[in-house]
Amino acid sequence: MMQILRDRISKDGKYLGKGILKVDAFMNHQIDPSLMKAIGEEFGKRFAAVKATRILTAETSGIAPALAAGMVLEIPIVFARKHQPITMAAEPYKEIAASHTHGKDVELIVSSEYMSADDRILIIDDFLASARTILALVKLVKASGATLVGVGAVIEKGFEGGRTLLKPLNVPIESLAEIERFDGDKIIFAGQVTSI
Amino acid sequence: MMQILRDRISKDGKYLGKGILKVDAFMNHQIDPSLMKAIGEEFGKRFAAVKATRILTAETSGIAPALAAGMVLEIPIVFARKHQPITMAAEPYKEIAASHTHGKDVELIVSSEYMSADDRILIIDDFLASARTILALVKLVKASGATLVGVGAVIEKGFEGGRTLLKPLNVPIESLAEIERFDGDKIIFAGQVTSI
Repeated sequence: MMQILRDRISKDGKYLGKGILKVDAFMNHQIDPSLMKAIGEEFGKRFAAVKATRILTAETSGIAPALAAGMVLEIPIVFARKHQPITMAAEPYKEIAASHTHGKDVELIVSSEYMSADDRILIIDDFLASARTILALVKLVKASGATLVGVGAVIEKGFEGGRTLLKPLNVPIESLAEIERFDGDKIIFAGQVTSI
Repeated sequence: MMQILRDRISKDGKYLGKGILKVDAFMNHQIDPSLMKAIGEEFGKRFAAVKATRILTAETSGIAPALAAGMVLEIPIVFARKHQPITMAAEPYKEIAASHTHGKDVELIVSSEYMSADDRILIIDDFLASARTILALVKLVKASGATLVGVGAVIEKGFEGGRTLLKPLNVPIESLAEIERFDGDKIIFAGQVTSI
């Protein structure tokens, strides 16, 4: 586990109940650029071996960690859009994903211009929880004919079971901080020894 | 003007007509991380003197240049959200901005947790065109009581007149590449000598 990230989650993360962790202070509304750089370096280390040619993420909150990782791995980032802008070429790839924090389904759209059968795609997102967003991104990768080579998330909510759903993909799955459960308003990390 | 950015716009930008420039290949759908790093360094140089304490941008396309600048200036980035997530605290600042590329009005929302009267705010966005988005961000800054200290845009469309609307703010306005006009499908930069 990435210690400075875990410390930051403990300090500035806020458990809001119903499984929702607020990390707006450093990742999802305000971004701490030095933490984000460190996150990029950690992803860079963990995924150096998979030889990705592009990183795929979803707007909005995936962009910062994906860009930080792309800066280290020196490969382009593509962010799936939730609305098709008028600049997008015809016939993009589209998939539906349920959004936890907005409480409704969203479409994820990637232009066929920026992902193709030659690509080795590394998916990076802010959270690995139910894996609904990540599985929608995986479908976009498959639709393009590209090869998925890894999945990285900044924070994993182990108790939501997303990792189990991703296992059959047979690629490395890396999260930088894994939350095992919430205890009252306390955040308990995986492997953490708690006093009784 | 920033030469590598201008060259990249000439090479990979696409004029779609009606004043719309597509830069999805390196900024607004796919992101080139090395170009984005250079953009961050350029903003860092140009705004070193304004002593900003935070960068404010708007999701989605402002996040990458704002983060790149924040990494250099070593200050946090806050991105205004278009939809209020369930993690946001009560009574955020809200403003309406018209979106050029989506063809409808959008709300821009910033939590009062991450911008306050003590702050010196640098606004960074992808485009300075009509300045509608930037002026909405300026209103958010004023609502928080913070001081606006500068406005930076990656690409300026000089012919849309946004700079004139920003002048009364009396802060440095910096764009890294200024487009004077489009000529057929050609992109003409400000100060560019064109053959007759």
